[in-house]
Amino acid sequence: MDQSPPPRPELVPNPAVRRLSLYLRQLEAFKRKDRRTISSKQLGESLGLTDAQVRKDFAYFGQFGHPGIGYRVEDLIAQVKRILGTDKIWNVMLVGAGNLGRALLAYRGFEQKGFKMTAVFDADPSKVGKKHGPFVIQAMSDLPATVQKQNIRLAIIAVPADNAQDVADQLVTAGVRGLLNFAPVSITVPGDVALNAVDLAVQLEQLSFQVSLSSISQV
Amino acid sequence: MDQSPPPRPELVPNPAVRRLSLYLRQLEAFKRKDRRTISSKQLGESLGLTDAQVRKDFAYFGQFGHPGIGYRVEDLIAQVKRILGTDKIWNVMLVGAGNLGRALLAYRGFEQKGFKMTAVFDADPSKVGKKHGPFVIQAMSDLPATVQKQNIRLAIIAVPADNAQDVADQLVTAGVRGLLNFAPVSITVPGDVALNAVDLAVQLEQLSFQVSLSSISQV
Repeated sequence: MDQSPPPRPELVPNPAVRRLSLYLRQLEAFKRKDRRTISSKQLGESLGLTDAQVRKDFAYFGQFGHPGIGYRVEDLIAQVKRILGTDKIWNVMLVGAGNLGRALLAYRGFEQKGFKMTAVFDADPSKVGKKHGPFVIQAMSDLPATVQKQNIRLAIIAVPADNAQDVADQLVTAGVRGLLNFAPVSITVPGDVALNAVDLAVQLEQLSFQVSLSSISQV
Repeated sequence: MDQSPPPRPELVPNPAVRRLSLYLRQLEAFKRKDRRTISSKQLGESLGLTDAQVRKDFAYFGQFGHPGIGYRVEDLIAQVKRILGTDKIWNVMLVGAGNLGRALLAYRGFEQKGFKMTAVFDADPSKVGKKHGPFVIQAMSDLPATVQKQNIRLAIIAVPADNAQDVADQLVTAGVRGLLNFAPVSITVPGDVALNAVDLAVQLEQLSFQVSLSSISQV
C-alpha cells in the first residue's frame, strides 16, 4: 500500500514543474529509441540530475515507479502529460502577426506538444483580413467573442513592447488564463492569471555576459 | 571613498544576471519617456522587486547611485550594457534555416540589443546556396572557416531535436563560446561554454500546468 501522503500539486516548486517538461522531452527521446523502461538514475543522468531529484520530483504527483523495473516509459509519458495538462489539446490564440508572430504560427513544435493555434489578431488595420496560411488575421475587437467561442485559456503575445500591457489587459478581461509574453518588456497580470515571458534578446544577453566573463578571467 | 570590496562579477548568481536584463529593459522604457533619474525604489516597483534587491544586484558590479539623486538613467543603461557585454556588437551565427530559424533572422529585437546575425547554416543541401533576405544559406562544412573569419562567439541552434547535439559539438569545436538552443531537446556542452535553452513548447506547458491547477482548485 502507498503510505505517502496524498500529492499536493499546488505546492510543487516552479523548478520541479520545469523539470517535468525536461523529463517529458527525454522520455519521448527514449521512446523514439524503443526503450520500454528506465530507472530514475538513467533518466537523471540524461539531464545531469541525481536519481534522488528525479524521484522527489515525481513524488509530488504520485507513485509511478515499479520495484525492480523502474519507470515504464510510455506510462510515465502519459502521466507527465496528464500532470502538465497536455494530455488534451489546448486552443491557443496569438496576438501580433509580425515576423515573430508569423514564425510562431508556423512553428510545428507547439501542435506536437498539444497546443493548437486557432486564432490570430493584430491591431494594424492593414493586416486585418489578410490570410496567413490557414489563418485570417482578425481585428482586436473580435478578441472577446473568439475567446468565448473557441474556449481559449492560453494566449501568446508577440506585439511591440509598448502595446504588450494593453494587449495583456484585453486578454485577461476576455477570460484568458495563461499568457506567454514575447514582447521585450515586463507586464503584470492579476494573481489568478499565469504568465511566462520569453525575451529572445535577454537569452543572448545572458550568454554574452557569461562569454565576456570567461574572456576576462582568461586574461 | 568607496569602502565596499571590489566587485566580483564571476560570483554573481544567475537570477541577478537575469534581472540585469530586466533592469535594462525598464531603464530603456524610462529613457523613452524622457526620465533622467530614477530611484532604486521606482526601478524596483516597476518590476515587482524591493529597492534593497535592486541595490544589492547593482552592488555586485560597483557603485552606480548618487545620494539624493538616485541613478542617472542614461549612465545606468551604459553601465548595465557594459556589464552584460552588449556595449559592443556581437556577431551571431544561426544554424537551421527552417521556419523558426527564418523568423529569428527577421527578428529585429536582436540587432537593437547588440546582436547582429552575420551567417546562416543548414544541413539540407536543397537549402544551401539559397538566398534569404541579405543572407546566403551556407553548408555546415563552411562553419569553422566562417567562425574564424567573422570572429563568432555566439550561435543560435534552430535545428530539429535529433540534430541539435551534433550541431552543438560542431559549433564548440569551431570555437563558439555561447549557444542559444531552440531545439526541443537537452544538449550538453563543455564547462567553459555557455548554454541557454529556449523550448517554446515548454513555456506553454508551464502555463497549461498552472492553468489546469487553478481550474482544479476552483472545483
